[in-house]
This record gives sequence, C-alpha cells and structure tokens, in this order.
Amino acid sequence: MSTSENALSIFALGGINEIGKNMYVIQHEDDILVIDCGSKFPDESLLGIDLIIPDLTYLEDNQEKIRGLLVTHGHEDHIGGIPYFIKKLNVPIYATKFTLGLIELKLQEHRLLADTKLIPIDADSKLEFGKMNVSFFKVNHSIPDCLGIVFGTPEGNVVHTGDFKFDLTPVNDQHSDIHRMAEIGTRGVLVLLSESTNAERPGSTPTELKVGNHIEEAFMKAKRKVFVSTFASNISRVQQVVDAAIKTNRKLALLGRSMVNVVDVAMERGYINIPDGMLINAQEVNNLDPEKVCILCTGSQGEPMAALARLSNASYRDVHVIPEDTVILAAGPIPGNEKNISRIIDNLFQLGARVLYGGSSTGMHVSGHGYQEELKLMLTLMKPKYFIPIHGEYRMLHQHKLLAESVGVESENIFIIQNGDVIDINHSEARQTRKITAGDTYVDGIGVGDVGDIILRDRKQLSEDGMVVTVVTLSKRDRKILSGPDTITRGFVFNRDSEDLLREVNRLVKKSILDLQSENRYQWNAMKQDIRKSLGQYLFAQTKRKPMILPIIIEV
Amino acid sequence: MSTSENALSIFALGGINEIGKNMYVIQHEDDILVIDCGSKFPDESLLGIDLIIPDLTYLEDNQEKIRGLLVTHGHEDHIGGIPYFIKKLNVPIYATKFTLGLIELKLQEHRLLADTKLIPIDADSKLEFGKMNVSFFKVNHSIPDCLGIVFGTPEGNVVHTGDFKFDLTPVNDQHSDIHRMAEIGTRGVLVLLSESTNAERPGSTPTELKVGNHIEEAFMKAKRKVFVSTFASNISRVQQVVDAAIKTNRKLALLGRSMVNVVDVAMERGYINIPDGMLINAQEVNNLDPEKVCILCTGSQGEPMAALARLSNASYRDVHVIPEDTVILAAGPIPGNEKNISRIIDNLFQLGARVLYGGSSTGMHVSGHGYQEELKLMLTLMKPKYFIPIHGEYRMLHQHKLLAESVGVESENIFIIQNGDVIDINHSEARQTRKITAGDTYVDGIGVGDVGDIILRDRKQLSEDGMVVTVVTLSKRDRKILSGPDTITRGFVFNRDSEDLLREVNRLVKKSILDLQSENRYQWNAMKQDIRKSLGQYLFAQTKRKPMILPIIIEV
Repeated sequence: MSTSENALSIFALGGINEIGKNMYVIQHEDDILVIDCGSKFPDESLLGIDLIIPDLTYLEDNQEKIRGLLVTHGHEDHIGGIPYFIKKLNVPIYATKFTLGLIELKLQEHRLLADTKLIPIDADSKLEFGKMNVSFFKVNHSIPDCLGIVFGTPEGNVVHTGDFKFDLTPVNDQHSDIHRMAEIGTRGVLVLLSESTNAERPGSTPTELKVGNHIEEAFMKAKRKVFVSTFASNISRVQQVVDAAIKTNRKLALLGRSMVNVVDVAMERGYINIPDGMLINAQEVNNLDPEKVCILCTGSQGEPMAALARLSNASYRDVHVIPEDTVILAAGPIPGNEKNISRIIDNLFQLGARVLYGGSSTGMHVSGHGYQEELKLMLTLMKPKYFIPIHGEYRMLHQHKLLAESVGVESENIFIIQNGDVIDINHSEARQTRKITAGDTYVDGIGVGDVGDIILRDRKQLSEDGMVVTVVTLSKRDRKILSGPDTITRGFVFNRDSEDLLREVNRLVKKSILDLQSENRYQWNAMKQDIRKSLGQYLFAQTKRKPMILPIIIEV
Repeated sequence: MSTSENALSIFALGGINEIGKNMYVIQHEDDILVIDCGSKFPDESLLGIDLIIPDLTYLEDNQEKIRGLLVTHGHEDHIGGIPYFIKKLNVPIYATKFTLGLIELKLQEHRLLADTKLIPIDADSKLEFGKMNVSFFKVNHSIPDCLGIVFGTPEGNVVHTGDFKFDLTPVNDQHSDIHRMAEIGTRGVLVLLSESTNAERPGSTPTELKVGNHIEEAFMKAKRKVFVSTFASNISRVQQVVDAAIKTNRKLALLGRSMVNVVDVAMERGYINIPDGMLINAQEVNNLDPEKVCILCTGSQGEPMAALARLSNASYRDVHVIPEDTVILAAGPIPGNEKNISRIIDNLFQLGARVLYGGSSTGMHVSGHGYQEELKLMLTLMKPKYFIPIHGEYRMLHQHKLLAESVGVESENIFIIQNGDVIDINHSEARQTRKITAGDTYVDGIGVGDVGDIILRDRKQLSEDGMVVTVVTLSKRDRKILSGPDTITRGFVFNRDSEDLLREVNRLVKKSILDLQSENRYQWNAMKQDIRKSLGQYLFAQTKRKPMILPIIIEV
C-alpha cells in the first residue's frame, strides 16, 4: 500500500458482520495504531476449533509501522486474541488499570507477561504517535474502566466509541463523560466508528441500579442459600450482589476460576468494595447456616464445565444446591447458548431450587450495549461527517445506518464495510476503495492458523458418518494378495452387528484389485480410486451413510 | 406387567422433559391405545444422527394388545415417528381428515401407504376398544383439525388435550369447542394430561386475526415483490397471506416441497380457500410485474436447504430477491435455530430487501401454544382429580404444576413424571410406582436404533481432533518389520506441513514394536496398546490435540 496516496486509512480486521474478535486499525502515513484484539468462539460447524482470532497478515507485513495496541475494555471479544497477537507482534499495549489487570491474567497463562510492555492509561491520558495524537473519553458499559478513543490526525478527528451505553445512574461511579463527548463533537468529528450490538432494539437500556433492587428483593425473600451466576467481569453486578449480601447479613463464596481471578483484580485495583472478612472459601459454605451464605458463581452462559453447570449436576465437590435454595441467573443468554442454559435451569428445578431466570424479564439483567436512543445520542453528540457502524452483524449495521440517517448523517457518508475493506481519507474526503487481507484464524490446541478447510471438511465427514479403513498387502514379486483385505470401521456401523456388510466390503476390495490387475493396471492410485468408488456406492446403498473410505495398500 | 393388578395405566414414551417426539400410552387391562408418535431433531452433540423417535420396546413386547394409534394433529413432533412405528407395529391409525393427509404424505415417502390402515375421525366420532370408549373435542392450535381426546374407562375419564390455545377469533373456523370441554369437566375427569409448552409465559396468546392485520398492512406498503416465509402446516397463516394477496391484487407462487405438498392437501380437503387462477409457478414470477406477485416459501427456521435460505443466497433458480422487495418472516424461531435465521436475515438485507423479522415483536407471528391463562382455563374447565403436565421441558412442567395448584388441583395429585414412569390407577386412586423402557431411538440413514454410544463417542473424537492410522507389516516367520510403519492422518494436522511430526510418529511406532519384541512380547493387542499410548502422549504434547489413533498390524 502506497502511503503517499492515502494520508489516513481506517479498516476493520474483525468485528464487522459478526459479534466477536473486534480489531480496528487507524493508519496515518507510516504510523499504525491498532484498536482491540478480540477473540470469538467458533460455532458448531467448526469442529474441534477452540477459538477464532483475527487474521494478522496485514499487520505482520507492516510490523515496523505499528506503534501500539490500544484496548477499549477488558471483554473477551476485545482482548481474547492478545496473547496470539503478542507472540507475533510484540508492540506496547495501552489500556486502563482494570483492563490491564485482565490482560495480565491472559498473558500470564501464556507465559508472555514478562516480555510484554504494558502501559496504563486513563481517560485523561494524551499520547502522540507520528502526526497523530490520541485522547480518550469515559464510557459506561458492563465492565469497569471503559474508554472511547479520539485520534487527532491532520485530516481530522476519528472517534472510536468502544462498547457503550448511557446509564445515568451507574454503579461504582462508572459514568459516561457526556460533557467531554459534547466537547469532542463541538471540536469536530470527521469519522465516527460506533458499536451496533443493540441497534435493533428500540428505546434505552434500563439502568443497572434497577437490577440491584431486584437482586436485593430476591435476597430478602430467600429462605436458604442464595446462588447468583453472572459474568465475572461485570463488576457492577458483582458489587450489587455483594451489597445485597451485606444487607441480608450473608457471607460470600466465589466459585469458578474466572470469578476468583477477576474479583481479585477488581479488589486489588480498587474497583469493588468487599468488606474484610466477608469472603469465605467454598469449603466453609457448609459450616454456616444456609441463610447466612451467598455464592457467586461462573457459568451463566451454560458452559458445561463451569461452576453453575456442575452445581446443577450435583457434581460440585464442596457446595450443593438443595431444596428451597435460591438460584439467580443474573445474565442474559448470548445467542446460541440458550439450550445449555435451559438444561441447567431444568436441573436446578429438579434439585428443588427456586430458580429466578429469564434475564431482563425478571429484572435481573440489563444489557451492556446501548439501544437505539442511546446510539442516536452518541451520533448526536459526535455530529460526525462520516459514519462507520461497527461491532455487529449486517442487520445491526443496517439498522444503525438508518439511525444515523434519522439524526442527520448524510446517507452517502455512511459506510457499511466488511472486515478488510479500507476507507481512505484524503483532503478530508473519505472513499471506500481497497481491500486488505482479513478473515478468521483458527486456534486449535497449540496450533494457530494450521487448521484449514481440508481438515475441517474431513472432520465434518468423520463426524457425520465415521470412516472405513481397509488394508491389503500385495506381493512385490508377483502382485498377489498376501494378506487382507482387512476392514476396520469407526463411527460408522457397530462392527459386531455388521459382519455381513464387512464381508461384502472385503469381497469388493478384492474384486477391485483383481479386476484392475486383469487389465494389467497396478498403480496404487487407480486401485485406491476404484476401491473408494465401489465401496462408496455399496455402503451408501446399504446404509444411506457416506463414511470416509481410506484404502491402504502395502507391498512387501 | 401383570394387568390384573393395574386396571388402568398411563405413561409417556416421549414428550416429557423435552419438546418433541410426543407419545403417550393409555392401557386398560389388555387394551393399549397409543396417542401420537412424534419425532424430534437431534442437537449438535448427536453427530450425524438424522432424527430421534421414541423407544418402542414396550409396545413391541405388547404388540398384540395395541388397538390403535390416535393422532391429535399433524405436526412433526406428533406424527414424525409414524413410518418407523408402522414398520414395526402395523396398527390402525385414527386421525382427522387433514392430519391423515399429512400422515399419508409421510407413508408415501416410506412406501408404506398401501399397507397401513387409516381411519378418518372427527370431533363427533365415538370409538370403543375393550372396556374403553373414546371421544374427542375440538381444540385450536397452529394447524387445522386438532383434537383433544377423552378416554372413558371403568376407573374414570382420562383427558389428553393435544396441543392447544384458546383463540376466540381464529381463522378458517378452527374454534375450540369450549362448551364440550365444559361438559366433559361436568361429567368428571379423573386424570388430565395437558400440554406445557408455554407454561412459562404469563397472560394469553394474541389472536391469529391480528397477525392477518399486520400481514395485510405490510402488503399494502410493499412496492415490489412480497415474500412470506412460514410453517407450511400453519394453514391459518397461509390463508391470511392468501387473503392479503387477494386484497392487493397479487398472484401467489409456492416455493419449497413441503409448502406445495401441504397446501395441496389443504386445498384438496377443503381447509383453505385459494381462488382459481391465483396460483402461479415459480417460473412465472419473472413474467409478472413485481407488485403483482407474492411468494410463500418454506425455510422460516433457517433450514439451509429450504427455499428461504436459497433465496437469501441468490441460489434459487427461478426467483430472486432484489432491492426493494419485501420479505416477511411470519414465524417465531424454534430455540436453537436463531443463528441460522439471523444469517438469512443478514443476507436478505445485503440483497437490498426490506426484511420484516422478529416474529411476535413485529406482530407477524403468534404462538400456537396457550400461555398461562389459557392453561388455567383448560384446568378450570376439566376440573381433574389428577393432573399430569406433559409436552415440555422440566421447568415448563414445574410451572404448569404451579398453575394447576393455583386453580385448585391438590398438590399431591399432580405427577411430574419422566418418560417411562407409569401412573397406575386402581379404584380411581393413582400412584406412580413402576418404570418401563423409554428413551431415544436414533435414526441414521436407513438404520433405526443401530447407532449407539460407542459410535457417537467415536464420531465425537473424530470430529474434534481427527485420526491417525499407522500400519506396520511384520513377517510371520521371524517377526521382522517388512514394511512401514506408514502413517496417514485425516482431520488432525495438514500432512504436508507435518513431515517432522509424522517421521517421529513412525519412529515411535517402530520403537514400541522393537521394545516389546526385545521382551519377547509379540501379542498384537499389547503392541497396539503400547503404540496408542506412546503416540497419544507424543501427539498431545506436540499439538494439544487428541486424535483417534488406529494402529494396524499385518503379518505376512
């Protein structure tokens, strides 16, 4: 990319047409700043894949120009890719104190902490990189210490909102700085990138404060133990559970590794108030009267190995849900997790618990992402010339575009982009012209990017109909069959019930080889192809299944 | 089971703690009546499984006692298992005219139509089987011609509601017969089995009539073609689309095999009114002005091969969605289908269509299952002594129990059962004591019940980490290695990038064999076990993956 032609360029390496793996890039001449490096979870079609991170090709090719990674907040879809990023691109990371705490936990796990440069910032920090200056503004979201970012460039100001809502009565003083946003708008915004998660939802998010009221009410009514499951990172929610426990004179146990770790970071760095002596260990739960205990646990998304799932299976070692206990699910389901969550609720009911579920309908949860009126407020405060809706699937970006038009952004100045589409800005005029490499990189075990379409296609075939391995040994000398065919299947049919089928398979393999030999054809490839074809047809006719067929020919 | 002890028995073979594969059994002495025979779709954990049907063991063991299969209505979760049932248990099927039409389509597909006895009934039919008499009552649901069933037995009356809601202004005269229900209640109900699908939802379902108003409004506003996707079997909904098309002077094309088939059954049997000359073929759509066409299509659940998905990919041959077309999703998402549906909506927006989605929030869909107030109305009308909530997951059964208590059913007379739990009734007293065989039977290809836990476990391992096949040929004479080890992998690592890994695998296999031989151990099992262990450890350390390892040893 010839930087002389393109003074300022903006693009996404993740987060567009998807929820997850957010990564945006601002490049001014030879200075590149990266915003966020998220991960996302694979859907069921990506068999065996553990995690998806952004494709970093462009950044690796332009490594020497990258000045830093700026992180808006500490959610997985904004920090989950950082260890993989840092392994390839060891640039300084700028983030607030709480966000850095969560990033440190990740780097520690990957043994990268010592070698990574972490630079704490706050809403008042000012940074300079080449001809760009960078400043910040506080936004409110469902995790503490979130920032929006302003990039001052010679072409004009570019604003990235991060994730946000406008909760005017937030918990623990996590206010949006509306005054500063207004100032930024007054100074002039050339391009706004604003998140679109809830662009389909009319109205405004209810305040977190109300959630606290409902939680307190549930605690008041509870006769025995109270369990609350929520996102560990939602420290405001955790604080409200702590407050309700204090009011009802209950001790607090934390279950689940991320709950323990994140609350630890929050306590250590001053983002949560938990009185001394209030926290107890899981083992101590049974020593106290049930009405004196509250348990905060992970697993609100139905994760099968997390604390809540294990509690619901009665397989948690030290703590048990028993009749008349109260279980509160203080989190909404992320789309795709509904089934796992429902199963847990069913199990908890079967244990005799009073289960308060259904997220926002019970008042136990509010979204962290602004609804339509809040998105309009951001657009109104910023008054951008150009608008790029980010962080959402296509229908959300589309709805966000309509919202922007409704508050006066010119329709032709709104860019609905794809990951990899570049918006180039020259003389303060923006155009969408080029594309750079972008896409999904799969993490599978310790492999990053080594699982491609062929492996996934094979896994899919294996997962649906299993496989058939058939081995024949031929004599090098006279090409006679010395051993076999021997056939093994896995995931296809139950071998013991399928003796006739396997006998016929062996007969067909032998026939393929002898038929070809009678035509003086001895190439392995031809034999294998013929075996695959004849077995494929026979097995499909017999079973309506299409196993993977692996013929193996040995010559001795 | 000794029938002399148990005069009357009631149990479920499917439909409890699940949504799907409904099947209930009423047995009086030596007479068995089966209610419904549904199927359900597997979740993602059941790799490769096509369909789940009830375990029929009990019925097969008591074949000579079965007097008939009574079918309440024509939805898949009530009729989907019938072909598999009929192959094993060829008993007469009793159902209304429309329901029989849908059953016939199924039997035809399985080439069973000629050999099955189908007996049409209506709400006024009276049947007798041994000492039981059977009568019916009309209920309203989201498919025409639905029945509830009353079993008159010497012990008392047993009522099965089928699926129902109380829509007082239904379309096409599909009224609930509330008067008859009241009479049944007045005569006395010993046991009520009532469906629980929406037991979690407060209030009452909105009327289908309102859906018609919203559809009509959308048709009025539409500038070009209108596409509507809904369940083919929801003939009331289809009728309202037809009516809106008539009012706005549009011809109607039907896309998707089930839409064509089901509308055909409905027209032929008089359940829908479509004026002559209104229906056009898909090929004719392009010959007409866009504002003169309406297209009804399958695929409202996001099924990847159905018409709507293909339209959204621009891969439908004769019909195309173009900018300013209107697409209405007039169906709610069945839990688990949200992601596929969202993808389609995104694609339709990208094609430039106006998409009306979000089910009940846009007024384009109402549920077919009664909400809490309607469930209470049924309980109130029937005034049962005993109540068995059916058709729902545990939390729904639990909520339905609370509703029953709230209208006066004694708590100890309510049975939350599992599939296979038997309620025995003697001298009009009910007790839950025994269990019979019940569970899921998997249909995979043409195999019914042949895929068990081992095959599924293998498929899971293959799907996540693929496999490694390693072959060694030994000499029978001196046990020397004649050929190999040769190693092939699929779904594990990309072979071309993993030459070092595979070289080490071959070395380890050779080492295993030689080490054992040096101890004079030549058993294949020992060798295979040793190879599996040493490769498993090595491969996990190298890749953090656990492929299936298949050692094959040949002797020649």
